[in-house]
Amino acid sequence: MSKANGEVSFDAIDHVAMPVKNIKEALDWYTKTFKCNIEYQDDTWAFLKFQNIHLALVVPDQHPQHIAFAIEHPEQFGQLKQHRDGTRSVYVNDPAGNSIELMEKASLKSK
Amino acid sequence: MSKANGEVSFDAIDHVAMPVKNIKEALDWYTKTFKCNIEYQDDTWAFLKFQNIHLALVVPDQHPQHIAFAIEHPEQFGQLKQHRDGTRSVYVNDPAGNSIELMEKASLKSK
Repeated sequence: MSKANGEVSFDAIDHVAMPVKNIKEALDWYTKTFKCNIEYQDDTWAFLKFQNIHLALVVPDQHPQHIAFAIEHPEQFGQLKQHRDGTRSVYVNDPAGNSIELMEKASLKSK
Repeated sequence: MSKANGEVSFDAIDHVAMPVKNIKEALDWYTKTFKCNIEYQDDTWAFLKFQNIHLALVVPDQHPQHIAFAIEHPEQFGQLKQHRDGTRSVYVNDPAGNSIELMEKASLKSK
């Protein structure tokens, strides 16, 4: 499969949310280690822009660790919840119990 | 910052490795739920291609959960190890103890 043909139709991973102990400490390390941009931060989570994806740093008792995929019809997996930024998504678990956010691809364009 | 200018210089996340209990069960779920392509699989791990990133599914006692970043000079963080596919990387921990793989960007082009 050629790269150009193959990539067009695949789903994208919108962001990965990783647990950290302290947001400021984590942001200091991530921004020193990597070329990335802080798009949001407070004491409970932060959102970092990388070239191909966003990385969320989360305090686990405030925000769940998860991976978020952008797909066309997440509503087939459950009732979508609308977030403040206009995106809509539903959380499910994979067979191993990992938390998976299924984001409506069309709602991402409204951001 | 304009999107066109901002994205060029950021580092990329090459892949995310997520723990699962059973590779075949996980592959069945991920390939039914998402448009993606299986690039590798055995009983201990699998590698899935998405539009913007790869997702590794790993049995945790065989392969560590981690996030892999592609950067220009990972050697500043430790001795690089060369893998069978020609890539070179070193594993470090972020301040919260998350396992982070730092891959040499130039070695990815040899794949």
